[in-house]
Amino acid sequence: MPLPIRIRANADETRTRILEKAEELFRRLGFAKTAVADIAAELGMSPANVYRFFASKNALVEAICEQHLARIHAELMRIARANDPVVDRLERFALSIIRYHKANFLTERRLHDIVLVAMEHSWESITQHKEALATLIESILRSGVDSGEVGPAVDPRQAARIILGCLTRFCHPMVIQQHVDDDLEAEAQATIRFLGRALQ
Amino acid sequence: MPLPIRIRANADETRTRILEKAEELFRRLGFAKTAVADIAAELGMSPANVYRFFASKNALVEAICEQHLARIHAELMRIARANDPVVDRLERFALSIIRYHKANFLTERRLHDIVLVAMEHSWESITQHKEALATLIESILRSGVDSGEVGPAVDPRQAARIILGCLTRFCHPMVIQQHVDDDLEAEAQATIRFLGRALQ
Repeated sequence: MPLPIRIRANADETRTRILEKAEELFRRLGFAKTAVADIAAELGMSPANVYRFFASKNALVEAICEQHLARIHAELMRIARANDPVVDRLERFALSIIRYHKANFLTERRLHDIVLVAMEHSWESITQHKEALATLIESILRSGVDSGEVGPAVDPRQAARIILGCLTRFCHPMVIQQHVDDDLEAEAQATIRFLGRALQ
Repeated sequence: MPLPIRIRANADETRTRILEKAEELFRRLGFAKTAVADIAAELGMSPANVYRFFASKNALVEAICEQHLARIHAELMRIARANDPVVDRLERFALSIIRYHKANFLTERRLHDIVLVAMEHSWESITQHKEALATLIESILRSGVDSGEVGPAVDPRQAARIILGCLTRFCHPMVIQQHVDDDLEAEAQATIRFLGRALQ
């Protein structure tokens, strides 16, 4: 029997509040130093209540990771569907990923641990996310085949996966972390313009 | 006053023996579990003697890292100077890096720690190495401009750096480690063929 709507809404709210508080504490104290008991205490609830929603600290990281991936995906989908030239959309696609990283992960050294934990425990979500990114790039290329911007010799499916691989330097959290001082946005723009030549 | 040749030769030999033994133990026991005293004991010398050559375990990792980078560089230089078509040389360049990783690092899970330590402590060597790789790719592209394989609109210096960035997925130790199950060689070949189109 499904739960009455009001109880389910409360459960969703509680889940969201736990996730927000967990992310806040991971950012403030670091992943290793944050206990589930700390998260519960700050929310004025029992640890048992947190565990009703998330079986472990790793499960919290997975849920936070999935939330971030969903946000990035929503933004990239808007870019892919816009009515702009192919190369412009690819450029905005790459810049949007770099800026998301800068805004959310690069400012805090502490977050690096969480990214590592997420990469270890949410590998399936990350693999699905990469597949979703490849599919979005593929849709950009297909619209370019229709408009004549992408040459007939290009296989949109294969080219999309190659382009995503070429953007590893700008998308992979560990790699970006090592290059915070580089002008990644300018490099990404030059890379997209270069790749655009291969699409003709 | 320079040391007499025989003493210097002995010092070089000792240095090499220490490095070989250190790498062997790091691979066998892991970086964290290997002490300088273990390396000294296996060589039948005092820890003080090891410290005469290497001030710390990190200094050993740096020297091992530099040795590997020098070996990779020597092989890539042979490929860059060969008298083959540009795209063939770029392909062998990428495959050679992937195969070196497979042969030396990917077989042993333990080695991952050492790569992380090396990336943290030998950042300067690694930056120099990347610059050297970019210069080798640039030399391949320049020979292609001369032969007409690379179009006049391509700036060899900039294109070389873009291509190296696009190969991050196949060159970066941490990224490769996450993709051991993928067919990286086939992906690298497809990527180089795609990039080759941008060079025309």
